[in-house]
Amino acid sequence: MFLGNDTLTLENRMLCVDGYPFKELAEKFGTPLYVISEEQIKINYRKYIEAFKRYEKETKKNFILAYAYKANSNLAVTKLLAKLGSGADVVSGGELYIAKLSGVPSDRIVFNGNCKTEKEIIMGIEAGIRAFNVDSISELLLIEKLSKDYGEANVAFRINPDVDPKTHPKIATGLKKSKFGMNKEVAKKAIKMALKMKNINFVGLHCHIGSQITDLSPFIEATKKMMEFILELKREGIEVEDLNLGGGLGIPYYKDKKIPTIEDYANALIDTILSYDIHPNLILEPGRSIVATAGYLLGKVIHRKDMWVMIDAGMNDLIRPAIYDAYHHIENAVLKEEKEVVNVAGGLCESSDVFGREREICKPEVGDVLVIFDAGAYGISMANNYNARPKPRMIMTSKRGVFIIREREEYSDLISKDIIPPHLL
Amino acid sequence: MFLGNDTLTLENRMLCVDGYPFKELAEKFGTPLYVISEEQIKINYRKYIEAFKRYEKETKKNFILAYAYKANSNLAVTKLLAKLGSGADVVSGGELYIAKLSGVPSDRIVFNGNCKTEKEIIMGIEAGIRAFNVDSISELLLIEKLSKDYGEANVAFRINPDVDPKTHPKIATGLKKSKFGMNKEVAKKAIKMALKMKNINFVGLHCHIGSQITDLSPFIEATKKMMEFILELKREGIEVEDLNLGGGLGIPYYKDKKIPTIEDYANALIDTILSYDIHPNLILEPGRSIVATAGYLLGKVIHRKDMWVMIDAGMNDLIRPAIYDAYHHIENAVLKEEKEVVNVAGGLCESSDVFGREREICKPEVGDVLVIFDAGAYGISMANNYNARPKPRMIMTSKRGVFIIREREEYSDLISKDIIPPHLL
Repeated sequence: MFLGNDTLTLENRMLCVDGYPFKELAEKFGTPLYVISEEQIKINYRKYIEAFKRYEKETKKNFILAYAYKANSNLAVTKLLAKLGSGADVVSGGELYIAKLSGVPSDRIVFNGNCKTEKEIIMGIEAGIRAFNVDSISELLLIEKLSKDYGEANVAFRINPDVDPKTHPKIATGLKKSKFGMNKEVAKKAIKMALKMKNINFVGLHCHIGSQITDLSPFIEATKKMMEFILELKREGIEVEDLNLGGGLGIPYYKDKKIPTIEDYANALIDTILSYDIHPNLILEPGRSIVATAGYLLGKVIHRKDMWVMIDAGMNDLIRPAIYDAYHHIENAVLKEEKEVVNVAGGLCESSDVFGREREICKPEVGDVLVIFDAGAYGISMANNYNARPKPRMIMTSKRGVFIIREREEYSDLISKDIIPPHLL
Repeated sequence: MFLGNDTLTLENRMLCVDGYPFKELAEKFGTPLYVISEEQIKINYRKYIEAFKRYEKETKKNFILAYAYKANSNLAVTKLLAKLGSGADVVSGGELYIAKLSGVPSDRIVFNGNCKTEKEIIMGIEAGIRAFNVDSISELLLIEKLSKDYGEANVAFRINPDVDPKTHPKIATGLKKSKFGMNKEVAKKAIKMALKMKNINFVGLHCHIGSQITDLSPFIEATKKMMEFILELKREGIEVEDLNLGGGLGIPYYKDKKIPTIEDYANALIDTILSYDIHPNLILEPGRSIVATAGYLLGKVIHRKDMWVMIDAGMNDLIRPAIYDAYHHIENAVLKEEKEVVNVAGGLCESSDVFGREREICKPEVGDVLVIFDAGAYGISMANNYNARPKPRMIMTSKRGVFIIREREEYSDLISKDIIPPHLL
């Protein structure tokens, strides 16, 4: 255990994951390189399962973990989670396709999003998913229309609980001004509409207040609001089977900052729900807290210039610092006595392609490998080809060995979909 | 001509590009859809060539337009520009690969970037490019080392002129605190080193102060600083053949805002250089001002909810609003009497996936096609697969017809590089 991460160790001053030195992985598999630890994913996943056993025991209802595919939908990662028993929170036809391919049982798949298309709804109906988390009455009507041709559909409604999650505005999703969900009044109307629809089964409620939340109080507030709404519906004779509280537990990007653990989070939710008389099945959609700490982005130092350290990874590989001003811990793969305060930049022609400013790290010299931490979530899933840079290779470390789980793109991949019109040939 | 764009017209209330109604293009080719006008690219390119003829005439030196591939390196676009005679500003091995494939002559290719790798430098040497715009002494030393094995290399040095471009901080690149370039003192040292190196040819100076600049004064200030440095070097007996002033002329994203034209920009640069006695070859690297106004992103309205209009395009297709809070003009493809103030959102599960807030546009109803303007630059080149969304199709309109220039990605493309380790199968 090193820097709070179960699968990180330090051996002969070399940072290792699952026992493999990052320096050697970089040499063997090339850089830029994503590394993700199978063992760390398992540990993170099992923390949830363990922590929510109490809920199942005390309520006799089910707890379903629907892993949020948007965090990382690499097929090896999704297969691993499916094998562990995880469900899937999908937000597009693409993610549903990957969930099915990964073998996730249909009754553990929920489909989120504010703009589900006809094609996506048909896919969801045909797969027989546990629920469409319906975002608007417009969507309910479209699902109803399609259900006539394609079969029954299970719907839950996404409630906007108007809770301030105290996170980055770009990932706060439960505020009134957000594009997501509906207020209680509209939801009640929608539920009553759904109850009268022939091929539509009303199964539950959903909310999701945001991402990277490191304070439990907004979760508790949202849970209370949802439970009170469930009671209100009960008084009107409407039963809610599933309560989906979304995801959003943050991870400790700053290594010196204490934040709630998965257990703290579970206990806060469980205690809140148990304080009510009624207990639905509980669904959660963690993403970041399952995969972020399992992943690393490795970049090799190509040039030094004053305070600047230029590495061969870039914002096309990991865009979080550029888009969210996100902090990622950075360290030299080999620790040294001498430390230095540096700026770590990627190689793209864009000022925002900087992974960290004024970071004290073990003296980075040309040829050294730098390790960017907590890159398992919203890393490869947001990667792009800006500056015509191929997406990086990705490997998985585990007790069983090291496996390439995503092949590095070639230059030819950059243009594989391009077609030159005849007159320009 | 409509909204200041040469190739946009209005026919029977339908917005058209090169004579083709967007509504019909969306129906025929599906949405989300990128549309780019061959005719508008030609017009924009020729405005530069016309405007800079005066420079060639009065100085007997060359003017080279090196189109900035990062703006849009779709092969049809780069082929078109190569056929028109354009050079290439490349910033990676991938862009150099595309430039060569597009038939750009080597003496019109310049290679920029703060982190050129060995592999990229070897590619540049083997291609015999006009210049590496060298960013650091570290890079110069690497080029020298490789030139011994791979042959002569032409180098220019990127000067950081410390000019405030008054643009978005993420695309301001010529400030002292930026990762790019070197100050005059370091550059002078580097030039003297280069002049003594056997396989290295010193050919010029480069600067680039930023992007989307809509005020000419920072360009004039940077040009003066560069010309004064050229005179200073001349006094020490060092001749500068090429002056590369980078790119960065903005385009009118806001349709009611007047900004300098390509001609204004050209005259400002030409007058500034002509006020000195010495006249180098002039290289410019426009990107946005060549392709932005030629491109559009079309999205179909899938759902309505209060003020919200949900379209099937998203931030994975066009990330500029999410990353830079960028403004893109939005209009209904078919104009209507009734207008409405709306928020236009994409379908990703992320609060920043909003194309515009409180926009007054012709009443958007489900099934309508919305046109997002000025999406030809930093659109497809920054596109990604976030939320497991395939990248969109791209078509080119021209006098000759309509051509698919990038095929829509399939779900299977999302996982085509993924490999499942045997124990997870």
